[in-house]
Amino acid sequence: MNFPPKVTVKEVGPRDGLQNESAFVSLDAKVEWINMLSETGVSYIEVSSFVRPEWIPQLKDATEVAKRIKRHPGVTYAALVPNQRGLERALEVDVDEVCVFISASETHNLKNVNKTIADTIPIMEKVAEDARKSNKRIRGYISTVFGCPYEGETSIDQVLFICDKLLEMGVEELSIGDTIGIADPLQVENVTKSLLSHFSSDRLAMHFHDTRGTALANVLTAMNLGIAKFDSAVGGLGGCPYAKGASGNLATEDLLYMLHRMGIHTGIDTEKVREAATYIAKHVPELSSHQMKLLNS
Amino acid sequence: MNFPPKVTVKEVGPRDGLQNESAFVSLDAKVEWINMLSETGVSYIEVSSFVRPEWIPQLKDATEVAKRIKRHPGVTYAALVPNQRGLERALEVDVDEVCVFISASETHNLKNVNKTIADTIPIMEKVAEDARKSNKRIRGYISTVFGCPYEGETSIDQVLFICDKLLEMGVEELSIGDTIGIADPLQVENVTKSLLSHFSSDRLAMHFHDTRGTALANVLTAMNLGIAKFDSAVGGLGGCPYAKGASGNLATEDLLYMLHRMGIHTGIDTEKVREAATYIAKHVPELSSHQMKLLNS
Repeated sequence: MNFPPKVTVKEVGPRDGLQNESAFVSLDAKVEWINMLSETGVSYIEVSSFVRPEWIPQLKDATEVAKRIKRHPGVTYAALVPNQRGLERALEVDVDEVCVFISASETHNLKNVNKTIADTIPIMEKVAEDARKSNKRIRGYISTVFGCPYEGETSIDQVLFICDKLLEMGVEELSIGDTIGIADPLQVENVTKSLLSHFSSDRLAMHFHDTRGTALANVLTAMNLGIAKFDSAVGGLGGCPYAKGASGNLATEDLLYMLHRMGIHTGIDTEKVREAATYIAKHVPELSSHQMKLLNS
Repeated sequence: MNFPPKVTVKEVGPRDGLQNESAFVSLDAKVEWINMLSETGVSYIEVSSFVRPEWIPQLKDATEVAKRIKRHPGVTYAALVPNQRGLERALEVDVDEVCVFISASETHNLKNVNKTIADTIPIMEKVAEDARKSNKRIRGYISTVFGCPYEGETSIDQVLFICDKLLEMGVEELSIGDTIGIADPLQVENVTKSLLSHFSSDRLAMHFHDTRGTALANVLTAMNLGIAKFDSAVGGLGGCPYAKGASGNLATEDLLYMLHRMGIHTGIDTEKVREAATYIAKHVPELSSHQMKLLNS
């Protein structure tokens, strides 16, 4: 197999992790935790989401979080933005990067944002246009690429259509999401090959969940095809909204264990990531990270 | 990547799983559970260990287990045998296959059987000789191939030396063990390539633990090189004797999830495996299997 010498790990714990945990983490704790993450060597942290606070109460303090964290030079601080109002809030606190999101499956998108895919795209276009005017980089999350909890299979043509739309509106990087952690390596190989036949690998990041234990096998498969950017969440935060008690996001420290042992450079200090995981474990019990279970053994 | 169309999954839960769980599972429950496993379509079950009962009290009822289980045609019922006395006990109850074991690292072997590797080999040779006389197939476990909790790295030359010794004494299949779940895919690639340059793939099974979440990535890597036999334990039983609370053996149902979704045939009914996992979960709490966490969500 062939692997890239260097991989970029994008930390999504403060957003995708916390948004799916029932525990509310206080503003102070979030700020202290994100400051710890900033010291790990990670180059990207998604700090919160500027959706309506009623939608995701766990992240209702997005503005305060973005204001109070200490910005580390070399770290991109990003936030999720669903619409124009969210963008305004994100721009007020000057996030470095704006993340838009959409599902590849119609039903999941409807349940998530109460809009069809066709109605969501123009909203994203306007957000992207305004974000670009403010000189913000834009990242695009595509959910349910490998399967949908409502519809089952997702068509690759639908995924490619959405990728095209997002890149056309100025999105610079696509995060290809296995939202329910259902993907297997053969599927990842097929989807990644399709994506790479249309888009350059530097446009693509993979976002795997470890719900069924396949996350690292899926990372391996994507890396073997040239993908060198992966999302993960400290502690394996995030669970699965469709399966209470199941494993969540791929844990950053589990990803780092595999990458570093394979000699793949990330620039991230695993020990410091474990410290950040230990910190958040005081606020969110039952982390699914393998490394944390080992550390606590 | 290239994958075999068919993989043989060897169920080691009743032995390698239970031996590292602190809970004692009653004889009745073991028998009922193994009978359930026999109905899953699996072709191999390691039912117990004929070590001295003081060594592994969890498996002190090996004789009664082997006597009382209902033997399913097409299933090989195997048991671990440390020495001549263990072999006699195993032959008395007519197990189908005898498993000998040794560590690739000197310190682990010493701690495990209180003997050096040099002193262990002649004992295995005698066991193997007598097992062959009784027309029993012999399987050989090699522990700590990918790393030792006491010595760290394991030399591949030492592994190859032990493989040679075992095959010379009539062992028909080698189970290459990542006893502490430390292996990464690059290491698995290197070790597997070394093994395959000396031995035919049908002589080799890989035995991964999911202690650090890499088990399925390691399976994938070995499959890509042509390995088509893997050990696993229902429920992910077994924990890690060196790290309390950590994940144990690769869970059979997690392995099946990945294989079946990739279109790889095993002949095993995942639903029946989940039922067997649900049964044993009543006796051994905190299973590390991803599939079981999903099922219980």
